[in-house]
Amino acid sequence: MALSLATGAVLDSRPASVVAAQPAATAKAEVTEKTPKYIFMFIGDGMAAVQVNSAQIYGGTNKHNQMALDKMNFQDFEAVGYQTTQDATSFAPDSASTATSLSSGFKTWSGTIGLKPVGSKSGNKPENVEGTIPKTIAERLKAEKGMKIGIISTVTINHATPAAYYAHVASRNDYYDIALQMADSGFDFFGGGTISQPTGKDKDQKDAYDVMKEKGYKIAKTKEDILALNSQSGKAYAVTPVTQDSGAMPYAIDNKDGDLTLADFVKKGIDVLDNDKGFFMMAESGKIDWAGHANDAKANIGDVIAFEEAIQVAIDFAAKHPEETLIIVTGDHETGGMTIGQATTGYDTAFHILESQKISYVAFDALINKMKADNPSLKFDDVMPVITESFGLVNKTKNDISRPGEPSYMTLELSDREVAKLKKAFMETMKDKPTDSEENDLLYGGYNPLSVTLTHILNNKAGIGWTSYSHTGVPVPVYATGAGAELFNGAYENTAVYDKLVKATNIN
Amino acid sequence: MALSLATGAVLDSRPASVVAAQPAATAKAEVTEKTPKYIFMFIGDGMAAVQVNSAQIYGGTNKHNQMALDKMNFQDFEAVGYQTTQDATSFAPDSASTATSLSSGFKTWSGTIGLKPVGSKSGNKPENVEGTIPKTIAERLKAEKGMKIGIISTVTINHATPAAYYAHVASRNDYYDIALQMADSGFDFFGGGTISQPTGKDKDQKDAYDVMKEKGYKIAKTKEDILALNSQSGKAYAVTPVTQDSGAMPYAIDNKDGDLTLADFVKKGIDVLDNDKGFFMMAESGKIDWAGHANDAKANIGDVIAFEEAIQVAIDFAAKHPEETLIIVTGDHETGGMTIGQATTGYDTAFHILESQKISYVAFDALINKMKADNPSLKFDDVMPVITESFGLVNKTKNDISRPGEPSYMTLELSDREVAKLKKAFMETMKDKPTDSEENDLLYGGYNPLSVTLTHILNNKAGIGWTSYSHTGVPVPVYATGAGAELFNGAYENTAVYDKLVKATNIN
Repeated sequence: MALSLATGAVLDSRPASVVAAQPAATAKAEVTEKTPKYIFMFIGDGMAAVQVNSAQIYGGTNKHNQMALDKMNFQDFEAVGYQTTQDATSFAPDSASTATSLSSGFKTWSGTIGLKPVGSKSGNKPENVEGTIPKTIAERLKAEKGMKIGIISTVTINHATPAAYYAHVASRNDYYDIALQMADSGFDFFGGGTISQPTGKDKDQKDAYDVMKEKGYKIAKTKEDILALNSQSGKAYAVTPVTQDSGAMPYAIDNKDGDLTLADFVKKGIDVLDNDKGFFMMAESGKIDWAGHANDAKANIGDVIAFEEAIQVAIDFAAKHPEETLIIVTGDHETGGMTIGQATTGYDTAFHILESQKISYVAFDALINKMKADNPSLKFDDVMPVITESFGLVNKTKNDISRPGEPSYMTLELSDREVAKLKKAFMETMKDKPTDSEENDLLYGGYNPLSVTLTHILNNKAGIGWTSYSHTGVPVPVYATGAGAELFNGAYENTAVYDKLVKATNIN
Repeated sequence: MALSLATGAVLDSRPASVVAAQPAATAKAEVTEKTPKYIFMFIGDGMAAVQVNSAQIYGGTNKHNQMALDKMNFQDFEAVGYQTTQDATSFAPDSASTATSLSSGFKTWSGTIGLKPVGSKSGNKPENVEGTIPKTIAERLKAEKGMKIGIISTVTINHATPAAYYAHVASRNDYYDIALQMADSGFDFFGGGTISQPTGKDKDQKDAYDVMKEKGYKIAKTKEDILALNSQSGKAYAVTPVTQDSGAMPYAIDNKDGDLTLADFVKKGIDVLDNDKGFFMMAESGKIDWAGHANDAKANIGDVIAFEEAIQVAIDFAAKHPEETLIIVTGDHETGGMTIGQATTGYDTAFHILESQKISYVAFDALINKMKADNPSLKFDDVMPVITESFGLVNKTKNDISRPGEPSYMTLELSDREVAKLKKAFMETMKDKPTDSEENDLLYGGYNPLSVTLTHILNNKAGIGWTSYSHTGVPVPVYATGAGAELFNGAYENTAVYDKLVKATNIN
């Protein structure tokens, strides 16, 4: 959808259609910067330009002379920038360090949250992290402007990205310490995923939910309790009643009717946070990243679309507070080395192929694991019907989804080569440990061999390629609209996002 | 290098360091749009954000706590935008259609140049292209403002991208027709690559160079003649004295000392074009794309760096004409599905590995083809020394370039698996036709199997992945500085680049 909150906007930051209406040679405008009172920081974990564009192609039109991208609401934001994401130790950085750069304005080691890289470090284990404890933008806005703070994530709430706004730890794996710091943050709203390791690594610590309660948080764990939260509830933590892999919210494509979505948590966050001094809300879509790691394009696209729906909630709020709201949408890094094009499909794409995938790799894993547990001598032919139901892929019969003139490799029919790959992957899946761990890592990235082979085959037929099961180093776009948005134009390091927020909120 | 030509700049379009010096709440600025008199349009063919970032990593610092990107001169331009590149028939478009969108403001079929998509089309063969002949931005600026026009490319001058500024043909493969339209264009300067098929497909047409001369062009084919060109030379075509694959200029990494570079042609273009009514110059780095097709990261990066050097010439010119110059840098589409990260290297990158590659895949092909011609019973062991000399890769001995703690797969030593791959590729290279053409296309993309296997192995060791031998559909950044630059902020279709130029030059 089209949106412009360009209040006191400068010429360059308005949509072309608006700008075009103005005679060029004589155009003058006065710039008056507004200080935003309501700030939304949306982070699509693992979301770079290609993930956005993939969702646009999936929702768009692929017809001769009618190729068109679906509009993403944030693509029309009047400011667009580019951030480069390398951290202090890697050009293919992690979410701990990159979210720290976004939240706190400095580069740190991969794996470290909210602490500056002082001292030495060997390998990936942070050691001797020292120095002062820097404040995050959220901590500063709370302390210096009295703004209320909300932190939302589709993954666990003490995962790296949300943690980077309230915690300071040497390792992102210190989940329990992070949970304790969350309880101590004094932030006003937490929402989305559960707490990871709430009783510590060895399950011998005081339950972090109880610590949260002691610190004055209301814990809402049912849909009814969550929907009842409002600006009078005090500090609150709204925990998703439905979880998937490690206590995260389910993938959007696995959601059942009535399940709370990221958009619901953003809406509820606004209800709780709304107050005279304003608020800062960070909302993360964390499983765009997880789907990228697993090379599952459909799950990835589904969560990008759900992310857009959550952003729409902020856009609707901004429409009521046009001169006081700043919305920023960005990613922390790219995940998976996703591209729109790969060797077998060349210049063709067929994203409609993805429509046949009905569930995420995680949901499929669960089906297969159950079948395997029920029948240890499971055969490939036993799972083929489940493959067809879940991914649409068919063996040896013509399917209906192919279109006239479309090359055979872009239909849902499996080639002999693809069937051979699937059978090999199925045999690996049935084993307790892999035959060749190097080849296994390369082929399957540590994921269920059958699932990842299925998503690879389906994605390749659609014209989507992946190069990695990890993060990559490609730059990430930043979209901004509203008060102070114009600061976010240009190409800059991810640390500048913090600097620009400091400037926009006038807390230099 | 840092650069800001922000004359009459608005706050948002200046570097963060400059903006930060200004108190936010009281900041006001007056926007006065300038109409540019000198316009540089730099197109990196196949250059998206990842190609730029790869060159920055290659030239940057990869040390613990000192990870840093090399500065690209155009990354500090005050305006940055994003263009989406799909054409009328594909989400993985070609240079003909995308350059047409940039030059003329509409989407057309893959393969078509400067003509609107009217009528029907079957497969990739344009048929029944009809309708009016639209004017390109270059044609309009010449006709409506009397500006001089320069067209420069490192590839052949009647290749798709340069052609899109002066030609209107149903198929990009109509090289001879394109050359005739070039001669008829009346444009003032052509420079760089040679004319492809100057006597037509069947070599039975009048030499296009002679047609150019008849139309009043001075053809300069030696370095001496080229360097002698100036604003008094009249219409001129400066043809590279040194060529590589199909009449293009050599890859930057294959250049010999003293060879004319893209920067030299831009400099010479300025000399020829400089006049009171101003000029429009399109300069294409066309082999960033070709290296992308071949998945040769080192050749790719080399040409991005040479592109930056050519842009520096425009930046230096702009410094002398700060209120009248507009420089735009963009790509037409991404090529190769390049990413910074791949499955085997995970979160590691080791771009210094690429330093060992001394020549492009094209130059290596030439070496191997000569060896093969000289000795039809060539063995793998015979070529191994040439492999080591050209790519640094060594067999069974420890190399010097690895660094303490670096994983073995990131050194120049070939693993048994890699040697097996190379031997298989070598055997394919020695054959007259491939054993399994489907597998061959997938593995080698139609390139010399040995060369492309070598670049894949070397690139993967460096942490670079590729998904395709074709173009991909990822969005492409636009960088702009100078008069009218602020128009280029935002996210838009590639066609908007033309619209923005029309607006900037006030020829609506």
